[in-house]
Amino acid sequence: MSNLFLRTLREDPADAEVPSHKLLVRAGYVRRAAPGIYTWLPLGKIVLENVARVVREEMNAIGGQEVLLPALLPKEFYETTGRWEEYGDTLFRLKDRKGADYLLGPTHEELFTLLVKGEYSSYKDFPVVLYQIQEKFRDEARPRAGVLRGREFHMKDSYSFDTDDEGLQQSYDQHRAAYIRIFDRLGLDYVIVSATSGAMGGSASEEFLAVAPTGEDTFVRSTESDYAANVEAVRTPAPAEGSVEGLPEARVHHTPGTATIQTLVDFLNGAGLDRDFTEADTLKNVLVKTRAPGSKEWELLGIGLPGDREVDLKRLEAALEPTEVALLDDADFAANTFLAKGYIGPRALLDNKVRYLVDPRVATGTSWVTGADRTDHHVLDLVAGRDFTPDGTIDVAEVRDGDASPDGRGTLYTARGIEIGHIFQLGRKYTDAFKLDALGPDGKPRRVTMGSYGIGVSRAVASVVEQSHDDKGIVWPREIAPADVHVVGTGKGGEVEEALRIGGELEARGLRVLVDDRKAAPGVKFNDAELLGIPTVVIVGRGLKDGLVELRDRRTGERTDVPVGEIVESTVAACGG
Amino acid sequence: MSNLFLRTLREDPADAEVPSHKLLVRAGYVRRAAPGIYTWLPLGKIVLENVARVVREEMNAIGGQEVLLPALLPKEFYETTGRWEEYGDTLFRLKDRKGADYLLGPTHEELFTLLVKGEYSSYKDFPVVLYQIQEKFRDEARPRAGVLRGREFHMKDSYSFDTDDEGLQQSYDQHRAAYIRIFDRLGLDYVIVSATSGAMGGSASEEFLAVAPTGEDTFVRSTESDYAANVEAVRTPAPAEGSVEGLPEARVHHTPGTATIQTLVDFLNGAGLDRDFTEADTLKNVLVKTRAPGSKEWELLGIGLPGDREVDLKRLEAALEPTEVALLDDADFAANTFLAKGYIGPRALLDNKVRYLVDPRVATGTSWVTGADRTDHHVLDLVAGRDFTPDGTIDVAEVRDGDASPDGRGTLYTARGIEIGHIFQLGRKYTDAFKLDALGPDGKPRRVTMGSYGIGVSRAVASVVEQSHDDKGIVWPREIAPADVHVVGTGKGGEVEEALRIGGELEARGLRVLVDDRKAAPGVKFNDAELLGIPTVVIVGRGLKDGLVELRDRRTGERTDVPVGEIVESTVAACGG
Repeated sequence: MSNLFLRTLREDPADAEVPSHKLLVRAGYVRRAAPGIYTWLPLGKIVLENVARVVREEMNAIGGQEVLLPALLPKEFYETTGRWEEYGDTLFRLKDRKGADYLLGPTHEELFTLLVKGEYSSYKDFPVVLYQIQEKFRDEARPRAGVLRGREFHMKDSYSFDTDDEGLQQSYDQHRAAYIRIFDRLGLDYVIVSATSGAMGGSASEEFLAVAPTGEDTFVRSTESDYAANVEAVRTPAPAEGSVEGLPEARVHHTPGTATIQTLVDFLNGAGLDRDFTEADTLKNVLVKTRAPGSKEWELLGIGLPGDREVDLKRLEAALEPTEVALLDDADFAANTFLAKGYIGPRALLDNKVRYLVDPRVATGTSWVTGADRTDHHVLDLVAGRDFTPDGTIDVAEVRDGDASPDGRGTLYTARGIEIGHIFQLGRKYTDAFKLDALGPDGKPRRVTMGSYGIGVSRAVASVVEQSHDDKGIVWPREIAPADVHVVGTGKGGEVEEALRIGGELEARGLRVLVDDRKAAPGVKFNDAELLGIPTVVIVGRGLKDGLVELRDRRTGERTDVPVGEIVESTVAACGG
Repeated sequence: MSNLFLRTLREDPADAEVPSHKLLVRAGYVRRAAPGIYTWLPLGKIVLENVARVVREEMNAIGGQEVLLPALLPKEFYETTGRWEEYGDTLFRLKDRKGADYLLGPTHEELFTLLVKGEYSSYKDFPVVLYQIQEKFRDEARPRAGVLRGREFHMKDSYSFDTDDEGLQQSYDQHRAAYIRIFDRLGLDYVIVSATSGAMGGSASEEFLAVAPTGEDTFVRSTESDYAANVEAVRTPAPAEGSVEGLPEARVHHTPGTATIQTLVDFLNGAGLDRDFTEADTLKNVLVKTRAPGSKEWELLGIGLPGDREVDLKRLEAALEPTEVALLDDADFAANTFLAKGYIGPRALLDNKVRYLVDPRVATGTSWVTGADRTDHHVLDLVAGRDFTPDGTIDVAEVRDGDASPDGRGTLYTARGIEIGHIFQLGRKYTDAFKLDALGPDGKPRRVTMGSYGIGVSRAVASVVEQSHDDKGIVWPREIAPADVHVVGTGKGGEVEEALRIGGELEARGLRVLVDDRKAAPGVKFNDAELLGIPTVVIVGRGLKDGLVELRDRRTGERTDVPVGEIVESTVAACGG
C-alpha cells in the first residue's frame, strides 16, 4: 500500500446519495471523470475484472464464444431496424471527418445479426451463442448513483441464434441457469421477475433484480414464498365462476350526486338498504382509447374493475402492447353521448359496441353496483354472466401490498431492486430486418430466431456494495474482492517488516494479498481496512512482542489472536483454502 | 471446430493489400464492421488477449498499476492543453443530450494528469506509473491495412510521474526495458529509433518499429551494426576540423548561366581549370524563413550544404521545431535585393545579418565553390572558418543509402517499419497546463514531470502476422497463438474420435488445444491448419490404422510420424513443455 495508487477519503462525495456511490469513491475504487462517466482505479479495476471473470467462466460453460465488437458503429444498420430514431436522446451520435453518421453502441443486436449472417448459412451451423464484455454508451437523462447508472458502463451482452422456437427456448433456459450461477457466485440477493405480461408467450423476457432499497425498479414479492414479479407481470387470481341461480335481480336506483365511488358508497350506506356497501362492491368503468400499430383510428376501450382499485397505467400499457393507449379528452365524450360521465355502466358500452374488458375479479356470478348509464342513477345487483357478458378480462388494476400472492402462498408486498441482468427472447425482429436465414435440411430457408441477454458488469460491482456493506465500509464477497487478505502492520518495532514477511508467505500459498506497509497511525490503517472491505484481515501490531497476531473476519467482525507461527495456516484456512 | 464460430475464406478480401489484412480476415480472426473498424472473432479475441497479457505482465513487472479510464471524455480538459483544436479532423467529437461537447479519447495525457493531481500531493507519493489497455479512437484520413491502422483500436498507454528529471529518465529507461521484453516475447523483429532530433535533450523520444516492407514509417539502418534511426534523427558525422594554412585563396570567377549546381559543375569542368569538380565540391545555399512560437515576424534563415544534397523538409522541420518554417516566395526575394537567386553565397547572408547555418560537412578548413552574390558569378576556394564563419551547424541534408553510419560501422540503407511502440519524455507540458505540483521535503511545491508510453496492441497482432507468415497462412509465435496444438482428425474410421481423445489428453497436460472434428475433406482441414497458423499440428489420419499419427511444426514444416501411444509426450515436448 505504500506504493499503491490509492487515497481513501474521509468525506462522502457531495453528489453521492446511495451507499455504493459513497463507498466506492471513498475507498478509492472509482473516480468521477464527467457526469455518469467514471475511472476505475487499481483496486476497482481488479474487482471489475473479477466480476468479468465470473461472467466469462459461466458464459463459456454454456458454450458461449467470446468476441469483441467495436463501440463505434455506422448509422445504417441501426436505421434498418429503426433504432437510430427509437433510441431518441439516449443514443450518442456523431459524425466522422467525411460527415458519415455513427453512434456509440448502446447494445449490439444489429451487428451480431449481421456477423452471423456473414459467416453462417446452414441449419447445421446452429445454434450459436456469442458474447462480449465491453464498454457501452447510453446518454441517460439523469446519470446518478455513481457506477450504478453511468453513461459509459461495462456490460456483458450475448446473443443466441437458433433455427426454431424450441432451440430459442433452450438457449434462453441455458442463459437463465448461467445467470443464476453468476449472481450466486457474486453473492447477490436477487429475484427473477417476468418483465412482460406474458401476453407474448410465457417467460419471453425476465429481469434479474438485485434487492436494494436504492433500486430504481419496483417489484412485488410474496411474504411466504419465492414469488416475485414486475408489477406489470402480476397475474391476479380469478375467483371460481359462481352460479347465477337465485341471485337478486338487478334494479336501478336513483342515486343523486354520486359520480365518485366514495359518494356512491356513502349514499348507499345512508339509503336504508338491507346491507352495507364497500368500494369493493362497486364496479367502476374506466374508458380509454387505443390504436393498433399501423392504424390511424383510435377506438374506445372500456375497462371494468372493482371500485376500490385504480387502473395502473404501466400495467395497462404492458397488457396492450404494442397497441397504443391514451386517455379520453372532452371531445371524445362529446362524440360519444352514450357515455354518462360518472354513471357509465356495462350496458351502454356493450350496446354501443365498445370493446369491454373486465378485471379477473369480475367473474361470472359476481354481483355489482355500477352505473346505470344515466346521470344520478346506478344499478344494484348487476350480475356478470347474467346481466352482461364482457368481451374478456384484462389484468390492469393496481397491485397492492396485502394482495394475495398469485402462487397462493402469502400476500404481496412491494420491494425495490437494481436491474443487473435481463434475458429476452427477441424472436425474429432483427433476423427479419436483416433477412438472416439458415438453409434447412429440406433445402428451404428458415428465418433464424434470436435471444439477447445482458449483464451490467460495472453495475453488478455497485450492486454488491449496495447489499454488502456496513457503516464502516464495504464487505466484499471473496470471489470478487480485490484481495483475499489484508495484512496490516502497525508499530515501529518491526511489525511492518513482519507484515510484509507474512504477506509474502501467504502469496506463496496462492492467496491474493494486500499489505499495509504505510507510515501511518494504526487508527488510519484500521479504518482503511474496514473501508476497503477485503474479507480477511491480519493485524500485526502490539501483540507481536508476545508472539501473537490478530485474524479478523471483515464480515462478522470476529477477531482471534493467533500465534505468529500459525498465522499462515490459520489465514489460509480462513480464506477457505 | 465443429462448434467454433469460424469460417475461413478462400479469397482475399477485395480491399486488402497487405499480408496481415488478407490473412487475419481469411483465417477468420477479424471481420470489418465499418471503414477502419473491426470485430474480433473468437480466435482473434484470444490472440488479442494474449498480446494484452504479455504487455500487462511486463508493465506490472516495472511497477505499473493498471487502471481504466473512460473513452468518452469532456472537451474542457483537452481545451486546456489546446489539443481539442490541435488534433484537427483526427479527433472524434460529439455532443451529449444537453449539448455539452465530448470527444472519444485518442490518448489520455490530460485525464491521467488530473487523476494524479486528484490523489497525490507530496514528493513522497512519487514516482508512480499508471497504465490502461483500452480502445482508442482516431479518425484517420485513410484507414488502411485492416487492424494495422484502424480508427478504433486497442492500445496500452502508460504515464509516469516524477518529481525530477533524473526520475523521469529512470521511468523512461524502465519502460524502454519493458518494451524490449514485450516485443521480444511477441517474437517481433524490431528496431528502436530516436523519434526526434535530440535537440530537446538526448533520447527524449524513441519509437519501436516492427521491420516490414508494408510499414508506413521509413527509417535508416546500418549494413554492419544495430544502428537504426528515424531519418529525422540521423546525425551526420562531421569531418575533423582542418587547418586553413596554405589553402589557395578565394577568387571570383565569371560563370555565366550557372544558376543550377549541374550547369555550374559542367561549366567549371569545361573551363580548363587545373582540377575536376563534382557537385559535392559546391556549397549550395538554401533560403527559408522561420517564425518562433508566439512571434508574428518571419525571419530569413540560410542553410549551406554540399551541392549534391537536397534539404530534407522533414529533417528541417524536426530540427527547427517548435519554430515554424516556410519557403520563400517572390515577395521575399523582392524585399531582400541582396539575394542573387542562383548565385547566393555566405558573404551576402552574413553581411546582411541573415542567420546562416551549415551542414556538418561544411567544417572549418573545408574549401568550396559557391555563389558570389552576383548573377553569373561564383567564388572558388572559399574556405569555411577563413573566408566565412557560419552561425552554427544544422543537420538537415537528405540521408542517402550508402552514407556512412553515424556509429562508424557500415553504411546506411533505408528500410520500412510499423510503429508498434513509442516512449516519450513529455516533461512538464501537461503538468504545467494543470498545475500538477508535489510538495517537496522543503515544503515548497515542485512541478511534476511526466512521460507517456504507448503500445498498439491490435497493431502488434497485425505486425506479428506481417513478419510471420508464408504463402499458406499465418505462423503464430507460441506466446500469442490462439492455441498450442491443432489436432486434425481426418477420415471415417474413428480418426476424429481419436483426435478428440488426444486433444483431451493434451488439455489435461496444460496445453491449449484446438481439435478439428468437422465433417470436411482432409484437404480442407489441412489448408485451414496452415491458414490458422497454430504452431504445432497433430494429424490423426490414414496412418492411425498402423498406429501412427503425424506431428507437424507449422513454422519449419517438419513432419514426424509418431506412434499414437507416444503422441502426447512428443507433443508436450514439441510445445516446449
